[in-house]
Amino acid sequence: MIVVMKSRCDEKDIEHVLAFLENHGLTGHLSRGVERTVIGVLGAVGPSGTPGSIGGINPAIGESLEGLPCVESVLRVSKPYKLASREFHPEDTFVEVPVPCVSTGAVSIGNSAVVMMAGPCTVESEKQLMATAEAVRGEGATILRGGAFKPSTSPYGFRGMGEEGLKLLAKARAEFGMAVITEVMTPTDVQMVCEYADILQIGTRNMQNYMLLDEVGRTSTPVVLKRGMSATIEEWLLAAEYILAQGNRNVILCERGIRTFEKVTRNTMDISAIPLIKRLSHLPIISDPSQGTGRRDLVAPMSLASLAAGTDGLLIEVHPNPDEALKDGAQSLTIQQFQELMPQVHAVTQAIGRNVITK
Amino acid sequence: MIVVMKSRCDEKDIEHVLAFLENHGLTGHLSRGVERTVIGVLGAVGPSGTPGSIGGINPAIGESLEGLPCVESVLRVSKPYKLASREFHPEDTFVEVPVPCVSTGAVSIGNSAVVMMAGPCTVESEKQLMATAEAVRGEGATILRGGAFKPSTSPYGFRGMGEEGLKLLAKARAEFGMAVITEVMTPTDVQMVCEYADILQIGTRNMQNYMLLDEVGRTSTPVVLKRGMSATIEEWLLAAEYILAQGNRNVILCERGIRTFEKVTRNTMDISAIPLIKRLSHLPIISDPSQGTGRRDLVAPMSLASLAAGTDGLLIEVHPNPDEALKDGAQSLTIQQFQELMPQVHAVTQAIGRNVITK
Amino acid sequence: MIVVMKSRCDEKDIEHVLAFLENHGLTGHLSRGVERTVIGVLGAVGPSGTPGSIGGINPAIGESLEGLPCVESVLRVSKPYKLASREFHPEDTFVEVPVPCVSTGAVSIGNSAVVMMAGPCTVESEKQLMATAEAVRGEGATILRGGAFKPSTSPYGFRGMGEEGLKLLAKARAEFGMAVITEVMTPTDVQMVCEYADILQIGTRNMQNYMLLDEVGRTSTPVVLKRGMSATIEEWLLAAEYILAQGNRNVILCERGIRTFEKVTRNTMDISAIPLIKRLSHLPIISDPSQGTGRRDLVAPMSLASLAAGTDGLLIEVHPNPDEALKDGAQSLTIQQFQELMPQVHAVTQAIGRNVITK
Amino acid sequence: MIVVMKSRCDEKDIEHVLAFLENHGLTGHLSRGVERTVIGVLGAVGPSGTPGSIGGINPAIGESLEGLPCVESVLRVSKPYKLASREFHPEDTFVEVPVPCVSTGAVSIGNSAVVMMAGPCTVESEKQLMATAEAVRGEGATILRGGAFKPSTSPYGFRGMGEEGLKLLAKARAEFGMAVITEVMTPTDVQMVCEYADILQIGTRNMQNYMLLDEVGRTSTPVVLKRGMSATIEEWLLAAEYILAQGNRNVILCERGIRTFEKVTRNTMDISAIPLIKRLSHLPIISDPSQGTGRRDLVAPMSLASLAAGTDGLLIEVHPNPDEALKDGAQSLTIQQFQELMPQVHAVTQAIGRNVITK
Repeated sequence: MIVVMKSRCDEKDIEHVLAFLENHGLTGHLSRGVERTVIGVLGAVGPSGTPGSIGGINPAIGESLEGLPCVESVLRVSKPYKLASREFHPEDTFVEVPVPCVSTGAVSIGNSAVVMMAGPCTVESEKQLMATAEAVRGEGATILRGGAFKPSTSPYGFRGMGEEGLKLLAKARAEFGMAVITEVMTPTDVQMVCEYADILQIGTRNMQNYMLLDEVGRTSTPVVLKRGMSATIEEWLLAAEYILAQGNRNVILCERGIRTFEKVTRNTMDISAIPLIKRLSHLPIISDPSQGTGRRDLVAPMSLASLAAGTDGLLIEVHPNPDEALKDGAQSLTIQQFQELMPQVHAVTQAIGRNVITK
Repeated sequence: MIVVMKSRCDEKDIEHVLAFLENHGLTGHLSRGVERTVIGVLGAVGPSGTPGSIGGINPAIGESLEGLPCVESVLRVSKPYKLASREFHPEDTFVEVPVPCVSTGAVSIGNSAVVMMAGPCTVESEKQLMATAEAVRGEGATILRGGAFKPSTSPYGFRGMGEEGLKLLAKARAEFGMAVITEVMTPTDVQMVCEYADILQIGTRNMQNYMLLDEVGRTSTPVVLKRGMSATIEEWLLAAEYILAQGNRNVILCERGIRTFEKVTRNTMDISAIPLIKRLSHLPIISDPSQGTGRRDLVAPMSLASLAAGTDGLLIEVHPNPDEALKDGAQSLTIQQFQELMPQVHAVTQAIGRNVITK
Repeated sequence: MIVVMKSRCDEKDIEHVLAFLENHGLTGHLSRGVERTVIGVLGAVGPSGTPGSIGGINPAIGESLEGLPCVESVLRVSKPYKLASREFHPEDTFVEVPVPCVSTGAVSIGNSAVVMMAGPCTVESEKQLMATAEAVRGEGATILRGGAFKPSTSPYGFRGMGEEGLKLLAKARAEFGMAVITEVMTPTDVQMVCEYADILQIGTRNMQNYMLLDEVGRTSTPVVLKRGMSATIEEWLLAAEYILAQGNRNVILCERGIRTFEKVTRNTMDISAIPLIKRLSHLPIISDPSQGTGRRDLVAPMSLASLAAGTDGLLIEVHPNPDEALKDGAQSLTIQQFQELMPQVHAVTQAIGRNVITK
Repeated sequence: MIVVMKSRCDEKDIEHVLAFLENHGLTGHLSRGVERTVIGVLGAVGPSGTPGSIGGINPAIGESLEGLPCVESVLRVSKPYKLASREFHPEDTFVEVPVPCVSTGAVSIGNSAVVMMAGPCTVESEKQLMATAEAVRGEGATILRGGAFKPSTSPYGFRGMGEEGLKLLAKARAEFGMAVITEVMTPTDVQMVCEYADILQIGTRNMQNYMLLDEVGRTSTPVVLKRGMSATIEEWLLAAEYILAQGNRNVILCERGIRTFEKVTRNTMDISAIPLIKRLSHLPIISDPSQGTGRRDLVAPMSLASLAAGTDGLLIEVHPNPDEALKDGAQSLTIQQFQELMPQVHAVTQAIGRNVITK
């Protein structure tokens, strides 16, 4: 942490800051420039085990310093996340998911092989789910997506089938040998959803639902953590840190578009998040071009762009009859469109020296 | 709902849309313009009682239509919120909160008298809370704020004293006759927090935590619903609609700043939200200039601006020793600064023909 | 400037950075922390007179350092603007504008008296302009606004009357004794507009039209510099710095709303910019609630909020018949609405200890 | 255009709107719904040749309607741009640029072959430019980029070599047979820059500098129009419309990143703009991953993502010694990095069935 003093501060102000630091068990290190004085804050952090002792100096100290009238600004030097950072864990993390339908019995997300996750936005009926699962499995998808608990901006929208939907997902898993990913929305549902799901999904609106993050962190089930609608990369990695800090190391990030001023798409996919996460973190990252654009006609190009940028997997909404979908019909591919996309997925993946795991 | 057809669509496309509408129990109404055809969707909404039947046509139908290749766009005509709208409820709503220290025994938020809520960001100790409560009550605040459960961007930050903090708030209430407002973060805590609090606060990160909204909606305790960091006014009113739809009509909105590109403030207060909410909704609205700016030196001017724009109350962080605050010290007023602010609050409130309720 | 090294860098990396600094005439000052090394960059800036020598270290040096593989980030300590900063010029700047209709013959923008600027968005005809000028002067406005050159998002929109419009503004000035503010859009028009205008206006889309800033900087005419639609405060002050650096010290900033995700307003007024500019700079700041909201029904509350927050003036669109306006009718007040607003303006201004200059 | 009436409006309000429309030569078409009445505005637009007659109804009429107290909102049905739209011009536009070094003597931007543009951010010296040009030509680039006039956020930054830089670009063109792209910043420079450049570049800050757009529209030189930092797709196409409306049909769009809340990149590339522009417009689109990210380490993955999404060309900053660059060193590739990128560019381009034109 570096404290930048105002240009008109005097010796008494500087002493005040130094004393403040000392009171908090820290040491200040003065640099007097021509225009202003800066104070580097060195040494560690107070009694070990206290809040704030991991990940650098307690942020509350920085906030208090920023409130002092003689302080211009406080610059942070350390990253606030630690377990999620590549500095802490230089090797890539692979998240293992058991998948009966592949020859090795599992997929390893984050490894060189790219994983295809596909299925309906929302589980609507046995017929709809089974038809979709069969079709996407036939094209090489290994993980079945489908929402049983659905966030809806309006209280009058469809909010999912609940546990009944989870049972249908389990049935599809049994029949097609796919793993299942599905959303969990509140801490008290975590145990129940874990009984049916191979991967838990935390949705964009819940990226900072800290009690939910704590709760999934106490399981060992893999978690796909979607990026908050307006979250920075740092805030996203701090949300991952919540899960990691509770002991669950099976965290997969998912870029699903951010909010921008654009009105002709639902969200704007931040494709640069893919290589950035690879540099800043060791965690795998997948892409959701369906939510990420909100437009069926953009799913194929944004899938290919994600792959070219290094994504570890794609999460795609497919519906046997999107015109009749109870939710998000406009962004779901038809089964035929998914079939047309797959050869392109293989071609671009090979062009960058990776492959798609399908069997 | 209005369906705008692509300019190159033909009769078959139009018939396809009309048939789709009929299948969903709706009627299409054609207008053929020079450049394109638009289809007004009339009639109501399918079997009463089904999801989507309040607040206009089921949004899933609009989404499906938007996915059709012959459709350019789908324009919404009705507002998606209903109970929160001024059209549904033209008179202002007043939310009554019992406050022993005022002569009438209650304040009525949304009424002509402006309400002052003040206190520490976070309850840290009995001494800190009591000193602050006494001081702000002495200046005319009637409602005591203080967080016992605190959201923290980092898992290593201070997360509050929990129920112990709630007990201290109850003690301050008993001693000074103020009402208490405090945050609730997860559905399973709602019952417990209701036992101690006069007003529940839903924080910015939980504005779309739908299960929490449902749960506070099932109580009758007044709720301050903070605006999501990047939420539009419509999304905010839809979150209020969740609470109202469960039967709790005591909803107070709170403008607390939105995220913008600005880096020298923590958030950017959207003062125009105050008069806008007054036009679009009947619910009261208060302002939080502490969170709204993140800077102590901006709290006074933004309090006065909020009042001039018509706010029904102010929610202000005050700390007896902000340099030592465990959270958000940079944005807390000292007790002296709060004392200096109050005469200005009275002056501006009177200038617009309202008054501040203090006793 | 402070260089933060990556945590895994070694001595060779540090030496590389120190040598790089030395090659550019700078001195590095090492601080070795537990987690990482930071290098404070001290001393001044190379041969005086070279680009980058004012306002701190040449930004290109920082950019190059940021590209080095061993560097985590480069933190700036000095503000990049200088002439615009309050540190450089602690006293408030007052911008004098000759106004025949007031008793002193001039208004002094930035002084304790608030200035009212009003008139049509666009000059449409002699009749329209004269009627508006007479009415707003009658209510106390001292400066007449009116666009002769208008930016239009569409090439098919109305782009103003050009020099003919300027002549009408000059006529209104002669008749009513008001000063005139009008927009200039391109460097080659600056001389001509100066012949007719008392204050030049730089519009939001031209805030970073550097050749235009240079050109108005070479005049001595007061300039109202509107904030760019998505500009930070720092970028805005850097744009002001362009004008100041050419020698024109008569710069007035104007908050006119920024772009946010909100759809029910055209822009979101950043009222906090008013007190922030007062802290960071010595320049006056005025508010434009008409452009700032795009909605007639929000002009009054946002005018009052601006005043409460400390604005030095208001710039308001008034039209004798807004339904027939050639541009921006939805945000223009009627003459009657302007009349109703003025007593409220006086009341709030007095409540904060200032007054409105009207005669 | 569709006028949505407030739900509580009465017959007199409806008649007022209908009369207003008739006064402007338009016809209203009533649809009375259960909740509200909407009025479709049909027929064309008044006397041909008047402002607003192309591209639908004069936007000022919509703005005036929005200001009426009985009107809830005004919905637009037509796109405001016409010449730039794919509806007006269904076939792809190819922009021909003479390039001596390729066998056909020209490249055709927008055609199936992808074009590589590379070179320094800024022309700094003959040595720097010639070394870069030779190297990038050797790897297959056919168009040389290099700024002679540079926008700089600070007045103290480097602003380019001016005409001397243009002469160096012409010299490089003569020597290596490449075409030259360079920025023009102000209308009075257009003629001069056209003498040296094969392609004019309009920078992000000038996307809405309408007089500059008009002026380049009056030439026949190809123009690369960069997207404004916070521009929507519609605003960008309206800026293209300005150029097209003056008669210059050789417009190439360039995605260069938009501003978001992210702090670890300079901008966020909107890769989805590439396929979106292909759907909405017939104009070619290229990508600038250097400006689009501001980070050298992201240039390669974002180049490949752009290609996978369908870009027609890449514009890449390359510098023989980025550590010593006078501008934007952090985002320039070294010559070696450019060499390493090219095989990947070829591989991904082939994977999607296109090729790169290099000779």
